[in-house]
Amino acid sequence: MRAIDIIEKKKKNYALSKEEIDFMVQGYTNGEIPDYQMAAFLMTIYFNGMSYKEIADMTESFVNSGDTVDLSKINGIKVDKHSTGGVGDKISIIVIPLVALCGVPVAKMSGRGLGHTGGTIDKLESIDGFRVELSPEEFIENVNKYKMAIVGQTANLTPADKKIYALRDVTATIDSIPLIASSIMSKKIASGADAIVLDVKVGSGAFMKDLDDARELAKTMVSIGKNLNRNTIAVITNMDQPLGYEVGNSNEVKEAIKVLSGKGAKDETEVALTIASFMCLLGGAFDDFDEAYRDLENKINSGLALEKLKELIKIQGGNPDVVDNPELLPKAKNTFLVKSELEGYVNEIDAESVGISAMLLGAGRKTKEDSINYGAGITLKKKIGDYVNKGEVICELHTDLDSVNEAYEKILSAYVIKDQVPEEKPYVYEVIQ
Amino acid sequence: MRAIDIIEKKKKNYALSKEEIDFMVQGYTNGEIPDYQMAAFLMTIYFNGMSYKEIADMTESFVNSGDTVDLSKINGIKVDKHSTGGVGDKISIIVIPLVALCGVPVAKMSGRGLGHTGGTIDKLESIDGFRVELSPEEFIENVNKYKMAIVGQTANLTPADKKIYALRDVTATIDSIPLIASSIMSKKIASGADAIVLDVKVGSGAFMKDLDDARELAKTMVSIGKNLNRNTIAVITNMDQPLGYEVGNSNEVKEAIKVLSGKGAKDETEVALTIASFMCLLGGAFDDFDEAYRDLENKINSGLALEKLKELIKIQGGNPDVVDNPELLPKAKNTFLVKSELEGYVNEIDAESVGISAMLLGAGRKTKEDSINYGAGITLKKKIGDYVNKGEVICELHTDLDSVNEAYEKILSAYVIKDQVPEEKPYVYEVIQ
Repeated sequence: MRAIDIIEKKKKNYALSKEEIDFMVQGYTNGEIPDYQMAAFLMTIYFNGMSYKEIADMTESFVNSGDTVDLSKINGIKVDKHSTGGVGDKISIIVIPLVALCGVPVAKMSGRGLGHTGGTIDKLESIDGFRVELSPEEFIENVNKYKMAIVGQTANLTPADKKIYALRDVTATIDSIPLIASSIMSKKIASGADAIVLDVKVGSGAFMKDLDDARELAKTMVSIGKNLNRNTIAVITNMDQPLGYEVGNSNEVKEAIKVLSGKGAKDETEVALTIASFMCLLGGAFDDFDEAYRDLENKINSGLALEKLKELIKIQGGNPDVVDNPELLPKAKNTFLVKSELEGYVNEIDAESVGISAMLLGAGRKTKEDSINYGAGITLKKKIGDYVNKGEVICELHTDLDSVNEAYEKILSAYVIKDQVPEEKPYVYEVIQ
Repeated sequence: MRAIDIIEKKKKNYALSKEEIDFMVQGYTNGEIPDYQMAAFLMTIYFNGMSYKEIADMTESFVNSGDTVDLSKINGIKVDKHSTGGVGDKISIIVIPLVALCGVPVAKMSGRGLGHTGGTIDKLESIDGFRVELSPEEFIENVNKYKMAIVGQTANLTPADKKIYALRDVTATIDSIPLIASSIMSKKIASGADAIVLDVKVGSGAFMKDLDDARELAKTMVSIGKNLNRNTIAVITNMDQPLGYEVGNSNEVKEAIKVLSGKGAKDETEVALTIASFMCLLGGAFDDFDEAYRDLENKINSGLALEKLKELIKIQGGNPDVVDNPELLPKAKNTFLVKSELEGYVNEIDAESVGISAMLLGAGRKTKEDSINYGAGITLKKKIGDYVNKGEVICELHTDLDSVNEAYEKILSAYVIKDQVPEEKPYVYEVIQ
């Protein structure tokens, strides 16, 4: 086999065999195939796409390129979730205790990553004492005992995807659905998931800007799951504005507590319950979505959900008192109020700009070496559809910085205020399974 | 400017500015843009193509990447010709004396290149004493005095194209008309041509297998010429089988002599006279194609053409006696006869296989270091449309080798012999101007 023949074949839009795809992926990972040939190959995939079969083969090849996590010692169906990324997304923190309460094991592995705010484990680390460095034995033991544990990702998972992602980043081949789908799914499968619920975000604040693209991505990932024997459901959710009212780290934990106590924002509550319900369904705890959804609502209203979150924090070494007293969570030194210069209805809140603003305040990392200021972040006071008077506070900026000009301007321009009432959009668009 | 934005732009099929194209070309040539970004960029061009404006800009950028030959001291319009490559193509040797005879200066610069046989200068070097290493002064002086000279290419012409071509070769991006057209035209323009006649070959033995592709390539190159103020005409000619009867080096010179003495094969004579007529037209020697064609026929019939070839050989240091006595040209030690195993009409002669066969006999170079055996080559005894009896000689193999099994098999399989009479095709399909 020669790389050039495989590039030529995909360029001419012929289907590639499993062996040909594996030859490209492993050859590139071990350095036998040079960057320029992989770059050309990736661009042919951008233009000609791949069949579901090819995408599944590529995903499998990514999985086989590195370590895989063995969760066989955990009893039950291990259901993982993944979000394609949004601003203010604290859904994982909400669903872990909910799903565990239903007896479905949640063995959550999470990366830190770069972004506007920290990742899920960064957010949880804002809780004093919370430990995400568990040994594999401790991790498995906790999941078997409490049905939940969260750990930072340490194994060398899908190195092929990592190397290819880095190349995509500099060759304008990020926005290819076969490449996005196989990248996401390979990580979940290598992490040991038996079943997967995907939260595919769509809207101005998401990578997928329109519903057609989001649907295609969702369908592609579900097909990978089917091909590789991992039951997979994708939920397409709204990301036209940040989820909930809090964007940051400790303030997102605070908001997750709110949702689990039944006082959460509508959008966040609905998305979290939908994701959790499907996780319970795939985990075999329920046969029917509505039944699962109602049961989870009951678990929130009865206070069980909040207790389970306390348990999670406790077993991971954190201070569980934050649940009853969220004021114990880290706070930033200063709060700046952003006031509207216009009057009218909020029509748009550009989530991307809100995210960048949060990062400027100290909530995220620009480089791996940066540290996160857990207390930094943004509290939205107005969301899409709300009426705003001139001079009214639209959001609060929390930061240790003494001046916030750039973040202030950024978030002010993120709000689009108009006379007309904006169209109402659903929080959950579609479910693909 | 950033390479990734330019790749993205072309990927989305937006037109690139002259500055953006130049940024990519010069950046890659001087090593600032890495191979993998250029590879991705080339693949976007393969898929999305380029406008005539973009292709002209790229051609100009290739020209500007290196030296350009200054022919301003040569009087008159310098008309160059270029063939997209075929087997048995000795047209340049024929047209140089013909066009020079009409007073149009032919300042021919030619590379050796790799191929089934040598290039034009290799073929001419099979003439004892023929020298292609002329100083720039001698070259210009000869053209001014005799209206013709041929020299090996030594200057650092279009290094951008050379580097990009090498990358295309390993990234499956050779077969892109914008890239082919700009590569060819940049070399001609850098060589100092004021006007260009292109011989675009089409057929089984050519790079362009069908007329539509050949037409598109021809139109693209003519448009580059127009955009860059070089009068350009493209002639689309048949390459379903080798041109004429001889494939090699010294035997091709012999066949060129035949054409110039009026006894040449029909196909070769018509193609050569067509190319030469257009060169004369662009050079201002005639206003009308038919007039030029008739005049050139007269120059052949009167013996003037043959005398002019003698003059060319003489001024380049070669032995002009070969013109009257072609037996003086190098001959291979052995001749093997290839006999037909079938009976019927020759329907196809795969030119590619004939070329490979010639190379196996010693007529071409596989690597730059290989030397050419001038006497090696193939004489076709039967061409498309000829009737062949079983056991009849279809061609002769000339070589210094003692066994020729592979070459023999190759050429035997190149002949497709069938009961039915093949469709007759023209030698010259179309003229694009």
